[in-house]
Amino acid sequence: MLKGYSVPRTPLGLAAVTPPPPWHYSGDLIGVEYWADPKATACLLPDGLSPDPQTNGHATLLFGDWQFTASGEELLDPARYQCRECLILIDAVWRDMPVTFCPFDFVDNDAAIARGWVKGYPRRLGSVFQTRSFSAPSPAAAPIAPGSRFTGSLSACGRRLAAAHITLRQAEPDVTKIFSRPVVNLRWFPRLEAGKHEKPTVEELVLSVTDDLQIVEMWTGEGDICLPRNPGEEMQMLTPVRTGMGFRCSVSFSVTDLKILESPDSRGYVPHVG
Amino acid sequence: MLKGYSVPRTPLGLAAVTPPPPWHYSGDLIGVEYWADPKATACLLPDGLSPDPQTNGHATLLFGDWQFTASGEELLDPARYQCRECLILIDAVWRDMPVTFCPFDFVDNDAAIARGWVKGYPRRLGSVFQTRSFSAPSPAAAPIAPGSRFTGSLSACGRRLAAAHITLRQAEPDVTKIFSRPVVNLRWFPRLEAGKHEKPTVEELVLSVTDDLQIVEMWTGEGDICLPRNPGEEMQMLTPVRTGMGFRCSVSFSVTDLKILESPDSRGYVPHVG
Amino acid sequence: MLKGYSVPRTPLGLAAVTPPPPWHYSGDLIGVEYWADPKATACLLPDGLSPDPQTNGHATLLFGDWQFTASGEELLDPARYQCRECLILIDAVWRDMPVTFCPFDFVDNDAAIARGWVKGYPRRLGSVFQTRSFSAPSPAAAPIAPGSRFTGSLSACGRRLAAAHITLRQAEPDVTKIFSRPVVNLRWFPRLEAGKHEKPTVEELVLSVTDDLQIVEMWTGEGDICLPRNPGEEMQMLTPVRTGMGFRCSVSFSVTDLKILESPDSRGYVPHVG
Amino acid sequence: MLKGYSVPRTPLGLAAVTPPPPWHYSGDLIGVEYWADPKATACLLPDGLSPDPQTNGHATLLFGDWQFTASGEELLDPARYQCRECLILIDAVWRDMPVTFCPFDFVDNDAAIARGWVKGYPRRLGSVFQTRSFSAPSPAAAPIAPGSRFTGSLSACGRRLAAAHITLRQAEPDVTKIFSRPVVNLRWFPRLEAGKHEKPTVEELVLSVTDDLQIVEMWTGEGDICLPRNPGEEMQMLTPVRTGMGFRCSVSFSVTDLKILESPDSRGYVPHVG
Repeated sequence: MLKGYSVPRTPLGLAAVTPPPPWHYSGDLIGVEYWADPKATACLLPDGLSPDPQTNGHATLLFGDWQFTASGEELLDPARYQCRECLILIDAVWRDMPVTFCPFDFVDNDAAIARGWVKGYPRRLGSVFQTRSFSAPSPAAAPIAPGSRFTGSLSACGRRLAAAHITLRQAEPDVTKIFSRPVVNLRWFPRLEAGKHEKPTVEELVLSVTDDLQIVEMWTGEGDICLPRNPGEEMQMLTPVRTGMGFRCSVSFSVTDLKILESPDSRGYVPHVG
Repeated sequence: MLKGYSVPRTPLGLAAVTPPPPWHYSGDLIGVEYWADPKATACLLPDGLSPDPQTNGHATLLFGDWQFTASGEELLDPARYQCRECLILIDAVWRDMPVTFCPFDFVDNDAAIARGWVKGYPRRLGSVFQTRSFSAPSPAAAPIAPGSRFTGSLSACGRRLAAAHITLRQAEPDVTKIFSRPVVNLRWFPRLEAGKHEKPTVEELVLSVTDDLQIVEMWTGEGDICLPRNPGEEMQMLTPVRTGMGFRCSVSFSVTDLKILESPDSRGYVPHVG
Repeated sequence: MLKGYSVPRTPLGLAAVTPPPPWHYSGDLIGVEYWADPKATACLLPDGLSPDPQTNGHATLLFGDWQFTASGEELLDPARYQCRECLILIDAVWRDMPVTFCPFDFVDNDAAIARGWVKGYPRRLGSVFQTRSFSAPSPAAAPIAPGSRFTGSLSACGRRLAAAHITLRQAEPDVTKIFSRPVVNLRWFPRLEAGKHEKPTVEELVLSVTDDLQIVEMWTGEGDICLPRNPGEEMQMLTPVRTGMGFRCSVSFSVTDLKILESPDSRGYVPHVG
Repeated sequence: MLKGYSVPRTPLGLAAVTPPPPWHYSGDLIGVEYWADPKATACLLPDGLSPDPQTNGHATLLFGDWQFTASGEELLDPARYQCRECLILIDAVWRDMPVTFCPFDFVDNDAAIARGWVKGYPRRLGSVFQTRSFSAPSPAAAPIAPGSRFTGSLSACGRRLAAAHITLRQAEPDVTKIFSRPVVNLRWFPRLEAGKHEKPTVEELVLSVTDDLQIVEMWTGEGDICLPRNPGEEMQMLTPVRTGMGFRCSVSFSVTDLKILESPDSRGYVPHVG
């Protein structure tokens, strides 16, 4: 009997790219909310999602420094399971529900790529860094304090794709100013049979389900974004036309579920969302 | 209209992890054929494949140094598309057809992971190296000549998972001594809905289809394999009980198709294989 | 006029591997103090250092997660300047002064290699990870609390060279239990002229000088060390015969100076240490 | 007795970053010769070198794919010793001898960084790739043939620093068209004592000595260079004003010696060069 939530499937199930859910995450985020060209955000939405008439163009660039564990001792194998991430989220609506959609997402290990594809995040491999905050006072410490500055940077294939710079100004107890919409993704697995390359095996609009979401130590301030132009890349289409708040916080959540909103075989299915 | 054979799907389709087929490969392989414990190979086979009564336990460890291109100029972006690979193939039968199955496969970039999953190769991210053969004579050149030695090595998550050492003895014009069976893989994409983690969205037994296969400069000699024991890994279950030929060759092929042999919904479907 | 504390030297001095001092560091350390074979520690000491008759064999394995800045905005370029480190320190005496000596040291970027060589740390490139402590509560958070466990791991050239596991038990206000000796290193720069390969250009016994050392949030508990045997490596000679405390703390310090204790041209020179 | 040509020094000398000379290299080069702004090349020359009045501004951008071995079996540990390199050479004169000087040099492993510093190459860590030529015919093979195209790319700290594109036109039997000048470098090792940061411990003008140089399979054609502008970098000052030949060849050589031309203590010393 083979075991393994993902490939490779083996007798013990230990060698799989990712262990099975529950997936627990705790990490530090820095981000900038901003407005991109509304035509750009609109043309990145998959079938089933529409531009949000109230907020189309609104986006968030996020850098995450994540620790991961499943039911085992994954957090004691940081070389395999820690990961860093850079993603963009753009506002949209599904039916009349305000949601946010992820058109670009990069992580720095394969376990995170696998989980991302399963959840519908369009992950690629990237090299992601962020300025961290350390406890021992020093010019190198970047304390969580007014005036502290942080950078996030993303590179893929040796090209700098994104950078954000933020300056903290004050603690912000109301975290819903940043995280207020559920994430809807396109879950996609390509087909290889000749003549069917255009018809993926899996094409589902899915709603992310997060358990036990906790957002702590939220601080806000100014933010600045750079999305350089690069050959073979398209992230630069989301370059800012106006920049809003920069922020930093610590976040934890768990994942054990996903809701399928639509698939080509089941357009019209409306799950009980909540 | 979004384009992209794989995620991320974008207006131009350039940002996707992998471009669409045709996928063309040319590379150098070093490998060792050997015999593992027949119980070990048998228990790695997925539903639909059986141990080959003639050759069960027979396996091949391969290290590949690949250049890739699709229809664009991918071979002019080596930082994104070159890849190195280490995999094991084990003998099996599908119905009464002798085939070979890939239980473990590691590559060093995400484009190769994506293509692998689509083709059913159970790819993870690894760090793969092989001694290369260079044209300019030197103690560092490793010419293709009697007595030349080559090493392949694989690490993942900072752990050495496999190494092979070969010594070339003679050119071998009959390449079918090594590559004589089609590859059958398990194509697998996990499901995340609560209560259904055991039932993948995609579970297909698939037959690899390679176009324009060319194997040149095949040399054979002795080979030696090391599959160290590592926590969280299972590749070591295929450690050799007896080692056969070591070999080195250059290989090219293209991929535009895949045949689905079986899926849970269609057990019994027998495609026209050829 | 060329500028640059290190190579490459350029008109603006920006391209150098490392900016000039002051070098400021703030980071998190996990470590285990232990006892190795006294013969092993003794035979790793360079000329000028002797085994400490009181504590010979006593050693500390350390994993550091560092943020770095110099006088510029280096902490806002984390992809270039953050670094992780794994090193071992062994007790010794210089004249009659108890010191600690670093025989093995690995870091994950070139700026840190350059600073290390200048300071006399024998740095090589490695892949270093440690379990981190995050603020948002979760099974993945590893809080600084009784029972929390942390792992540090080091790999180089795809081989796992070291791992440490610690379990926190209690806060330890007296940091001198761990850090009580100055570090003395061998500063070494090889010579390449034919016939002189045995005589380095630089061979100095040097005393590390750290400004503004702060050690905060020190916790102690149990610790465990693994130094696997690997071809081409010698770190395993320091494998534990007995293990002492495991600990975790945050540390900051600055570097602007170094004291040369001895060099082949100046044996007998006794600097004013302090 | 400690052994080791470089740090770390150990009882067996196996753990050192680099083994002692002889150092043997065999590899593939792609490059483009070109002309940069003569003021830019002039202001990169260290004391002791002058712009070549005949060719000032002339430069070569090179990408190397190297296999390395010393007296041991280093070529059988490719994960530790293979390396890729990107460097620029600029014309200069030492006294009245035409030479070439290396102002920028990047490699992808620490053994190569260490050898580089010892030889006076100003190496930093980079991610270097080049299109390779494979034996098995395929759209992915890039044969050595008229019209074949190759790319070299360099990134450091996640930023693309250089790229070259070449198109082969014809075999070129006269390799001296490309490699006709000895390399003179600045050998430099910084000092850390307070107040002396401006006075390096080692500052020598050195002449590279290569044994058994072989250049084979030289082809030439067109070439194109891109040196993008990047914060914290200065390589872009050598951006082309005019581009000459693109070329590809295989090269081998050995290193066992170095000649010191000048040092601050010995200005005026003229070695017997040859």
